Amino acid sequence: MQSFEINKEDLLKLHAALEHGDDELHEFLQEYHASEIAILFEKLDVADRERIINILPADVASEVIAEMDEEHNPGELLAGLDPEKRSEIIDELDYDDATDIISQMDEEDQQEILEEMDEEDASNIRALLTYEEDTAGGLMDTDLIKVNIRLNKKDALDEIIRQSEEMEEFYTIYAVDDTDMLLGIVSVKDIIKARANAMVAELINTDFVYVKADLDQEEVARLISQYNLTSIPVVNNDMRLLGRVTVDDIIDVMEQENTEDILKISGVSEDEELSGNWKDAVKSRLPWLIINLATAFLAASIIRGFDAIVVKLAVISAYMTIIAGMGGNTATQALAVTVRRISLSNLSDKQAYNTVLKEILVGLINGAANGLIVFFVAMFYDQNPKLGLVLFLAMTGNLVVAGLTGAGIPLILKRVGIDPAVASSIIITTFTDCIGFFLPLYLASKLLL
Amino acid sequence: MQSFEINKEDLLKLHAALEHGDDELHEFLQEYHASEIAILFEKLDVADRERIINILPADVASEVIAEMDEEHNPGELLAGLDPEKRSEIIDELDYDDATDIISQMDEEDQQEILEEMDEEDASNIRALLTYEEDTAGGLMDTDLIKVNIRLNKKDALDEIIRQSEEMEEFYTIYAVDDTDMLLGIVSVKDIIKARANAMVAELINTDFVYVKADLDQEEVARLISQYNLTSIPVVNNDMRLLGRVTVDDIIDVMEQENTEDILKISGVSEDEELSGNWKDAVKSRLPWLIINLATAFLAASIIRGFDAIVVKLAVISAYMTIIAGMGGNTATQALAVTVRRISLSNLSDKQAYNTVLKEILVGLINGAANGLIVFFVAMFYDQNPKLGLVLFLAMTGNLVVAGLTGAGIPLILKRVGIDPAVASSIIITTFTDCIGFFLPLYLASKLLL
Repeated sequence: MQSFEINKEDLLKLHAALEHGDDELHEFLQEYHASEIAILFEKLDVADRERIINILPADVASEVIAEMDEEHNPGELLAGLDPEKRSEIIDELDYDDATDIISQMDEEDQQEILEEMDEEDASNIRALLTYEEDTAGGLMDTDLIKVNIRLNKKDALDEIIRQSEEMEEFYTIYAVDDTDMLLGIVSVKDIIKARANAMVAELINTDFVYVKADLDQEEVARLISQYNLTSIPVVNNDMRLLGRVTVDDIIDVMEQENTEDILKISGVSEDEELSGNWKDAVKSRLPWLIINLATAFLAASIIRGFDAIVVKLAVISAYMTIIAGMGGNTATQALAVTVRRISLSNLSDKQAYNTVLKEILVGLINGAANGLIVFFVAMFYDQNPKLGLVLFLAMTGNLVVAGLTGAGIPLILKRVGIDPAVASSIIITTFTDCIGFFLPLYLASKLLL
Repeated sequence: MQSFEINKEDLLKLHAALEHGDDELHEFLQEYHASEIAILFEKLDVADRERIINILPADVASEVIAEMDEEHNPGELLAGLDPEKRSEIIDELDYDDATDIISQMDEEDQQEILEEMDEEDASNIRALLTYEEDTAGGLMDTDLIKVNIRLNKKDALDEIIRQSEEMEEFYTIYAVDDTDMLLGIVSVKDIIKARANAMVAELINTDFVYVKADLDQEEVARLISQYNLTSIPVVNNDMRLLGRVTVDDIIDVMEQENTEDILKISGVSEDEELSGNWKDAVKSRLPWLIINLATAFLAASIIRGFDAIVVKLAVISAYMTIIAGMGGNTATQALAVTVRRISLSNLSDKQAYNTVLKEILVGLINGAANGLIVFFVAMFYDQNPKLGLVLFLAMTGNLVVAGLTGAGIPLILKRVGIDPAVASSIIITTFTDCIGFFLPLYLASKLLL
């Protein structure tokens, strides 16, 4: 089986079905999984999306809406439905999905939808709306299975079956006391296998991993990954159980964080939608380019200071672009390794220090190796061994600076609490450009004029 | 709760415990989760690791070894243990983890360990060793819960409880016929809730997602993410059930694939260990730098062809570095967005075409905006409006090329079956360097000489 992608045939069939009546459309849709319909939606206008949502049974419709990409605005779609259908769909949505979608709507639509809902659902969603989107609280679902520790095996099983009626999947049963304080976790298997008169209190595992609601989602992802969890309970400061974050939410978080890392390191605003239009792209990238233009003028102003040598030895301006460029690439390499390392684990001070030392050493060796090549080119092609020496020293020096800044700057940013990925190649290469122009020009003006 | 990181206190206590007897060490270790001990191992030499493994109960020891990072060589550790302890640990390991570790050993150790194991385990692992590491088969575990469709509710539950004895977690029950052909899936909940005389065949869901053993792991990850699965069954060409891939394995795959993407796009070999030593780093990066040096000479040779204009108008060499550098950054932005987009979904031909068009348009607009700034600097600072015009045209032209290559090259690579992330900034910037030098020099030599 391959992951779903839209092909022409699907689209042709979809458009044909849309032109025929609702019956054909209904039949067509039955061939597709809700997450596939959500992908097909990318190709349809809002009117057709609404028509399809109205045809689908509420449980499928809610899944389609939950699976829609944020950029295709599921909130708008939901707000446009007639109130009855909308209520049915919201009833079927998990609280965390419903909250995500409602949080995207404007204030007025939010109020209207919350007022339509039954008291309990509305107050649950209102509570979830108070958490920051990128924290454990913003990510969690309040639907979970919990049993009181004083229940016996039979009552606990009955309770689990009762609570699981409305849930598709559950992994762990949470054991709480009368005040909803989380005391332990237990699996269905352990309950099934227990002797008939066992109590929940005897069966629970009290050594479990949990998070507070305000923990950053990246840290939640790291815990789930480190301890191989399928879900993690979310508690408030008094250890009262608020919800759970499941591993499938974490997969979305990881994809999102990885996209942000790769964009930021390349000088693209983390908010740019990958499939956004050109206007968004210009808005997200032009500011970075203008910053880069300013830093490039800074680097170029160094060249202006050495007009004498450029005029006397025109070939130096070809070589200095090579040295600056190689510095930029070396810095980008060091940056990529360091940023990725920081995002996978927290480095101790000693590890950070060793990382920088390593990158300086790597810069020195790679600089000397490439410097040697440039030396030979200058000696044999330009017949100028002194120029070769200048270029060898400049290349080595610049690649050492490249290693130092490529590793050092993201580590410093991390220490002072700034996202290390904003140390994008644009910022780092300012250093390697400046040093890459200055070193050959300065050394040449001293040794060759 | 925060994810575990080694702090000085832990390390001091660990070293103190190592110097005291085994009892203190044992007591110390009880405070830590297996995945935490695996992290502590990074700070210990092989002798201390062995000593700790020998003290730990086999189930914890096997978890520690399974959690160890590949670069710290769990295979070597396992091979060094005495055979009895080793057998105990291997018995506790999941087949997929055991296979991963054994596959890293040399042939001789592999044979020795496989011969020590009982027949069934050895043949299971031998079978797993035949799959490529980065396919569904290489990722899957053969431990799973399966029931024959002809069982009734009670026998099925008994069978599930029996099979689950040796498993920590399971999510889905697989329903097979007498020949082990996979016919459907069912949850424990559905079985518990079924009426007493229900048969498995009536309870199963026959519309499920599965993969063949040779499917690439990235595609497996995409399916699990797209359909929000906790596990996915792996079958052979006759639909016989071979194993299952679980979502926690996928998290590791995603981390690994994302690391590879970010390294490749930055011109670092995908195999470089993030925390490897300087020798590995030089080995993985120097080849890319030397390729870049060759391409930089190519770009620089363009400058050599325009000696006349460089000598007459020395300031042009400062400006051309700005134009080339801005092209490199624009191309890197387009590249990051395109590579990330390709790795999250498969683009249709039309989407690919539109992506390139969009990036050309973005390059045109950003080029004109930055070109205008450069135009004004040349006009007011250098008092040379003609130079300004040359620079405006060169900047705009180079940023259009940057958009075209930054989006076009990875898309072409993807079409011809090459990993698009190898279109690293090193390759792409060769184009923007060449055009970035050529355009201002050529236009200046035509308009200003």
